Amino acid sequence: MKKITVFFVCLFMTGVSVFGFQNTEIDYDAIYKIKDEGLNNSQVMDIAWNLTDRIGPRLTGSEGLKRAYDWTSAEMKEWGLSNVKVEAWGEFGPGWGVKKSYLAMTAPYYQALIGIPKAWTPGTDGEIEAEVVYVNIQNESDLAKYKGKLAGKVVMLPTTASAETTFEADARRLTDEQLDGMMSARVSNANRQFSARRVSDFRRRAQLRNAAYQLFKDEGVKMVLATNRGGQGTFFTSNGARRDPNALPEMEISPEHYNRLVRLAVKGEPIRIEADTKTVFQREDLKGYNVLGEIPGSDPKLKDEVVMLGAHLDSWFAGTGATDNAAGSAVMMEVMRILKESKIPLKRTVRVALWSGEEQGLYGSRNYVQNTFMKNGKPNSAHEKFSAYYNMDNGTGAVRGIYLQSNEAVRPIFQEWFKAFEDMGASTVTIRNTGGTDHQAFDGIGLPGFQFIQDPIDYGTRTHHSNMDVFERLQAADLRKNAVIIATMVMQTANMDEKMPRKPKVFESLNRSR
Amino acid sequence: MKKITVFFVCLFMTGVSVFGFQNTEIDYDAIYKIKDEGLNNSQVMDIAWNLTDRIGPRLTGSEGLKRAYDWTSAEMKEWGLSNVKVEAWGEFGPGWGVKKSYLAMTAPYYQALIGIPKAWTPGTDGEIEAEVVYVNIQNESDLAKYKGKLAGKVVMLPTTASAETTFEADARRLTDEQLDGMMSARVSNANRQFSARRVSDFRRRAQLRNAAYQLFKDEGVKMVLATNRGGQGTFFTSNGARRDPNALPEMEISPEHYNRLVRLAVKGEPIRIEADTKTVFQREDLKGYNVLGEIPGSDPKLKDEVVMLGAHLDSWFAGTGATDNAAGSAVMMEVMRILKESKIPLKRTVRVALWSGEEQGLYGSRNYVQNTFMKNGKPNSAHEKFSAYYNMDNGTGAVRGIYLQSNEAVRPIFQEWFKAFEDMGASTVTIRNTGGTDHQAFDGIGLPGFQFIQDPIDYGTRTHHSNMDVFERLQAADLRKNAVIIATMVMQTANMDEKMPRKPKVFESLNRSR
Repeated sequence: MKKITVFFVCLFMTGVSVFGFQNTEIDYDAIYKIKDEGLNNSQVMDIAWNLTDRIGPRLTGSEGLKRAYDWTSAEMKEWGLSNVKVEAWGEFGPGWGVKKSYLAMTAPYYQALIGIPKAWTPGTDGEIEAEVVYVNIQNESDLAKYKGKLAGKVVMLPTTASAETTFEADARRLTDEQLDGMMSARVSNANRQFSARRVSDFRRRAQLRNAAYQLFKDEGVKMVLATNRGGQGTFFTSNGARRDPNALPEMEISPEHYNRLVRLAVKGEPIRIEADTKTVFQREDLKGYNVLGEIPGSDPKLKDEVVMLGAHLDSWFAGTGATDNAAGSAVMMEVMRILKESKIPLKRTVRVALWSGEEQGLYGSRNYVQNTFMKNGKPNSAHEKFSAYYNMDNGTGAVRGIYLQSNEAVRPIFQEWFKAFEDMGASTVTIRNTGGTDHQAFDGIGLPGFQFIQDPIDYGTRTHHSNMDVFERLQAADLRKNAVIIATMVMQTANMDEKMPRKPKVFESLNRSR
Repeated sequence: MKKITVFFVCLFMTGVSVFGFQNTEIDYDAIYKIKDEGLNNSQVMDIAWNLTDRIGPRLTGSEGLKRAYDWTSAEMKEWGLSNVKVEAWGEFGPGWGVKKSYLAMTAPYYQALIGIPKAWTPGTDGEIEAEVVYVNIQNESDLAKYKGKLAGKVVMLPTTASAETTFEADARRLTDEQLDGMMSARVSNANRQFSARRVSDFRRRAQLRNAAYQLFKDEGVKMVLATNRGGQGTFFTSNGARRDPNALPEMEISPEHYNRLVRLAVKGEPIRIEADTKTVFQREDLKGYNVLGEIPGSDPKLKDEVVMLGAHLDSWFAGTGATDNAAGSAVMMEVMRILKESKIPLKRTVRVALWSGEEQGLYGSRNYVQNTFMKNGKPNSAHEKFSAYYNMDNGTGAVRGIYLQSNEAVRPIFQEWFKAFEDMGASTVTIRNTGGTDHQAFDGIGLPGFQFIQDPIDYGTRTHHSNMDVFERLQAADLRKNAVIIATMVMQTANMDEKMPRKPKVFESLNRSR
């Protein structure tokens, strides 16, 4: 086994502490085995196919996610992973799913409309046929104009969504310039600042929508139509995160179809629609679950310490959640398969987690870290024995590097490890934070949690919460590569001399809170 | 009125004849008026909106096209055009339209599928629910495997359609290099050459499909599913040009949805669908019509001579035929409005034609030219008195120049005229032919028929015969510009000293055939 040992001094450009020397041996023999298994015998696309085409959409609480719990845990057991379990993290609430989705304009002429019921809304209870009313409100006083006029109607509100022709490619990769910019970035504030004006505008619009929605209920509206961004047959869903038990039937439709109805209404053309939607609520099991599996540590002294990796298994439901996040789930499962199959000794225990409830607020991971690493609001011994968590949830694109999540102490370690992947285009280590997914659950309780820089491909333009987040959008070569890189990161973390350095600031605040 | 007179000698690089001197006065005063009306008071987008959003799809023989006949002819009358008429060109056959279009996968899980009944196919006669069978045939002997197994099933055949992620923009404009290449091109052969191998492959596949289709009918298949190219929610229709009166119910669906079914079937997953489609055949009026309107010539000696412009008003039906060809129809109508409104004297009579049956084989224009310019297979006096025809049917993109359609004698005239539009990016005159639309009807009987070079925008990638050929895809600035350029071409043609030169070769062959 050839090893190259590198010693270095941690230099803190933004902090004051010095942790001192840290061993970051790069295990090129192990990497060779990982590359061989991950590139020449990859199963990542087969895993991803099962999660998407075969299992389908995986909304938290749905039949689809239940199938995914069953299948992923069965696979992990078949691969010989240890302690495989589908573990409840707490109560999520009722599950929901679509059983029929049909909507068409019938006047001034027939046009089937591309759309889907909004999450956690009821169906139409059989086919309905109704006039469409465009409720053109700019402020609450406008609502009075519609009182007594909406019973039995289908309503639409003004939208800013458009679907302009684009002269830019849907999909792209990060350029060298963009990566250089990330490399040289300083610590960023993870919270974007919104102007007071913007916040008050947002509140005003939300209030107006709520007032309109109340009017619709009071009036006895049959259905609400809505739209979001998208175009050319792609539509993004807003996802009805509220899970309002008294919601009206509502459909989210493609912007071109929505805006055609709006334009016709504004010109005074009578519009009628027919719709037949059926949705089901699952109330038998209100709990949410995570799927867990392990490769036990081989070093008697270190096997109680844990390195984790994960991705969320749940998805939205208009597509099959291919890039969000069958991609991450498939890669993390493949990482475990590669590590198990290649029989590389791992000193620390390696544990994979496939989360649920991520799309509603990182519920699976946030509850897991509370249940596992905290007791009465304070870190427990498992917190002490934890090294690092790696997450993948930035779509299908190739890993190009990693976000340090403001943890400067980790920079030299990751810089060293990524040297093994310069030929794969992955070498950018940025101090920046990235948010919006499950590594934040770990970061939030002072544990090192990381997520990777990935090529965006068409995540923002086509797939992220859209009806077209489907198998075709997965980039096979990228996912194979990602599994190899992440398997290496996990292997190195499992076998390094010390646990992963933590952020000093978080330690201090945790110490203060004891 | 300021005029710049330019004389030049026609040089034939590819032919032998010399027509001699030709007057091509550029009437800058008239162009100023045209630009003023066409750019500052444009109605082209309003016309296009009526044709798309309000009137809807305009398949030949359908209710939609009937509405378009009525509305366009009424508009032309309102503008004060002369001899406005909706004129039958001959028998087209039954019209057809969609009255209900619903399709969903119900097992292994629910997924509404994006699609539409294939043109001129019957509906399902109420809701059907059936198993899907993937008929994986590579040659006719494979069909025997499916005998006795397809009764009551929904069937799918293998497809080469995929929907890969694209790293190129949907929409683009022609580059200077591309335009330079067209400018310096030599006379091209309009007929693309296919290798004998390719032709025989094509025939073999067509025979196989026909044999499979016969089996499906014999077996009592409930519905056929098919797909074409597309992606991300866009699907292109194949358009069932055959109009087979014994067709099975058939739907064309988006490639991602189709290929998901295929992948599931290949892996042995049982698939079920439910569908409810209704189509109607219109058999009361089997005739096809063109809409015509004129501005009579102002010169007593030349008013019997005619300059024509046109575009096809019919469309396919999955979208609203916005770029194919509400764009062209709206521009040509706007040209007439501009010429009428700006009161520029036009020596020759200018006649606009909005064709139908173009999508089934240029029926409207081909029949019109036979009915109007030919008698007993020979050119009549109207043929003699005809100058030129201008067509627009290359989508929504800006005019960048014109195809000479191998008529070298016209090059110096058009080159001179396009000098007025260099500031609009339109100056390319190419000897090349372009095909596939109504100018060919004129060209085919020896009359000068031209079509413009246009920026492709997203015609090939998103709109040409797709469900997403809708109002949003129209480029307003381009259509305004096109109306100005084409109005100028028509004005110049109406007022030039001589009629437009014709192709010598065609004259010869016509003379020989007398």
